[in-house]
Amino acid sequence: RTNGGRLWDSLMEMAQVGPGIAGGNNRQALTDADGEGRALFRHWCEAAGMTVSVDRLGTMFARREGTDPDAAPVWMGSHLDTQPTGGKFDGVLGVLGALEVVRTLNDLDLQTRHPLVVVNWTNEEGTRFAPAMLASGVHAGVHDLDWALGRTDAEGKRFGDELARIGWAGDEPVGGRSIHALFELHIEQGPILEAEGVEIGVVTHGQGLWWLQVTLTGKEAHTGSTPMNMRVNAGLGMARIIEAVHRIAMDSQPDAVGAVGQANVWPNSRNVIPGRAVFTVDFRSPDRAKLDAMRARLEAEAPAIAADLGLGIEIEPVGHFDPVTFDPGLVEKVRGAADRLGLSHRDIVSGAGHDACWINRVAPTVMIMCPCVDGLSHNEAEEITEAWARNGTDVLLHAVLDAAGV
Amino acid sequence: RTNGGRLWDSLMEMAQVGPGIAGGNNRQALTDADGEGRALFRHWCEAAGMTVSVDRLGTMFARREGTDPDAAPVWMGSHLDTQPTGGKFDGVLGVLGALEVVRTLNDLDLQTRHPLVVVNWTNEEGTRFAPAMLASGVHAGVHDLDWALGRTDAEGKRFGDELARIGWAGDEPVGGRSIHALFELHIEQGPILEAEGVEIGVVTHGQGLWWLQVTLTGKEAHTGSTPMNMRVNAGLGMARIIEAVHRIAMDSQPDAVGAVGQANVWPNSRNVIPGRAVFTVDFRSPDRAKLDAMRARLEAEAPAIAADLGLGIEIEPVGHFDPVTFDPGLVEKVRGAADRLGLSHRDIVSGAGHDACWINRVAPTVMIMCPCVDGLSHNEAEEITEAWARNGTDVLLHAVLDAAGV
Ligand SMILES: NC(=O)NCCC(=O)O
Ligand SMILES: NC(=O)NCCC(=O)O
Repeated sequence: RTNGGRLWDSLMEMAQVGPGIAGGNNRQALTDADGEGRALFRHWCEAAGMTVSVDRLGTMFARREGTDPDAAPVWMGSHLDTQPTGGKFDGVLGVLGALEVVRTLNDLDLQTRHPLVVVNWTNEEGTRFAPAMLASGVHAGVHDLDWALGRTDAEGKRFGDELARIGWAGDEPVGGRSIHALFELHIEQGPILEAEGVEIGVVTHGQGLWWLQVTLTGKEAHTGSTPMNMRVNAGLGMARIIEAVHRIAMDSQPDAVGAVGQANVWPNSRNVIPGRAVFTVDFRSPDRAKLDAMRARLEAEAPAIAADLGLGIEIEPVGHFDPVTFDPGLVEKVRGAADRLGLSHRDIVSGAGHDACWINRVAPTVMIMCPCVDGLSHNEAEEITEAWARNGTDVLLHAVLDAAGV
Repeated sequence: RTNGGRLWDSLMEMAQVGPGIAGGNNRQALTDADGEGRALFRHWCEAAGMTVSVDRLGTMFARREGTDPDAAPVWMGSHLDTQPTGGKFDGVLGVLGALEVVRTLNDLDLQTRHPLVVVNWTNEEGTRFAPAMLASGVHAGVHDLDWALGRTDAEGKRFGDELARIGWAGDEPVGGRSIHALFELHIEQGPILEAEGVEIGVVTHGQGLWWLQVTLTGKEAHTGSTPMNMRVNAGLGMARIIEAVHRIAMDSQPDAVGAVGQANVWPNSRNVIPGRAVFTVDFRSPDRAKLDAMRARLEAEAPAIAADLGLGIEIEPVGHFDPVTFDPGLVEKVRGAADRLGLSHRDIVSGAGHDACWINRVAPTVMIMCPCVDGLSHNEAEEITEAWARNGTDVLLHAVLDAAGV
């Protein structure tokens, strides 16, 4: 069993870095706070006897040698970056839980046959730099390295420049590493496990996603002196498309969601009819056909809404992943670990995207979930109990030992 | 007749200060650019022999003495501040047109009986600091001085502090000045004069306005892993209320307009359901009963929309003015001036609010309008012709001479 108190202390210490405004965190990718969190993590890894290397996208790999020099390593980890108003556990639990596994093995003086690698993926959240899971996506060959380095934030700052600025641009190549198996522990970010009183989610599948960035072009004009019939109101078009997104998601129930999280109008002045609106649609489903149908329906309805108002429209996909089926062998190992530990469990579909979803394309991969209070995530009030964290980490320990051999 | 070429040169020179990104201006109130524009204007006024004084809200008064020391001055002016993506003429024409009237009188060596005052009102646009027409509102006794000094911008900066920072906090009291008559020349900002080929708008009335700031409170949550029925989506609520504002305005035709110009969601991240939305409704009508009915309908419908989605709602009025009836005697002087100059004219209602609308409460006031291309304003592409500008300024000259006596 892992040391739940030690794990919790590390989670709380990491939460001091890049504090939010309401008890959570703002440690967005490639900010100074991200750099500080990385330094603390490296310090902990080295103190636990691991060797840390960094690749060109800043992803950190902390390695603990195994007894068999020819065996491919078993990976475990997640991400330390957060939403602008994020919680203390989303991603962080997966990284520090993996670290706790290593610390526990150190305590027990246990060496595995396969080496172990604790990984901290860069820019999982995708808030500052779209898309989400950027580094793991390049690692899996989904995106191009140079394309990733050239992604820009809202202020036009380049990913590569910001990574160098915080001092975490490594020189190792991205991807091409051999991986025996990858395990990602994560909070559910949804309400099912808590509602059903189940301790462990055995993640068999992950939802797919489309992010569609919509740009509407109207005509800035005075709100007072422009007659209603002369307006070309990009804000009104945005409102109608937000409603259409909701309707499409509701019509696609069950197993589908949709919303607009990011929405901006220009010039954003009380007495100017918006001349431009830019917003991002987030559609998800575990069913690929349904996911694509939602996108297709929006791509039919939104231009009609725009045309009706005289607006120009552009729809650009800025994020995508297919629904994922995790490795059945590793799923079985997670189930077995929970059984051995006497923890209640159920199969579950991940509602969110995760780095594991990309790595699943290039290596056997699985996820372990623990409950979170009220299913709340991407919210500073995100909360879990120390027991939930320890249960998940215990399952991680046992499943990893099963995969890595003792 | 005024010197149209000289007026145009001054308009173009002022447009160099605080340039926009598309040929217009960004010279928002109490920015460095505003300070620079003021300095240029003071320089011109002093060169034209006037004495410039500044009150505690930064409003500038350039005085040309008359022959009768006991006569109350005749005022003319408008504002030099602009929208963030504003035009070169909205406000500026009224100030520099007034300056051109004085320059013309200097050329003719003509002295009026009443002194003349050219005024540049602070913060007419109300973009950075709501409400619009802030200084003239205090001048007219509608707002409290300390309340105005304490208004904050989106970054929390105080009006009074920003005014001091740019060096334009004067020490003269606000208001309490005797005004024989006030004339404000302005571009129409609407399409009527151009469409009808009429050279001069004789402004008999002004629309009233309500600005209602709506704050919706939902629950930030993950866009992927939160089931549709557990969402409390403030962005969706905003979309529905933007649609309701449009419907209310359309149902109130003719003589009514409504739109949302400013709209923000939090945390504004692609994969977070908005937990908060703040936006401002702009309703206008020349008919007070209709104006109030639009507000009342929104105050009934918006809370129902919010309740339906489980959202908290607050509606706060952040700007208001009543419909205005300008001074009939001065209206007649404007009409007479246009007639004498052989310019076509028609009576018109101002769709926008203007400083003259507030001053009308404490002194006889009137406005003169000239056409603008496509009725476009609050847009960097705002355009007028040199002839339109000169015609309006000629009418201003003749009406002012009529009121001030020679
Ligand atoms: N787990 C998580 O919140 N990932 C961010 C990417 C997504 O929006 O699913
Ligand atoms: N003239 C003008 O654009 N004034 C700003 C106040 C308003 O929105 O009417």
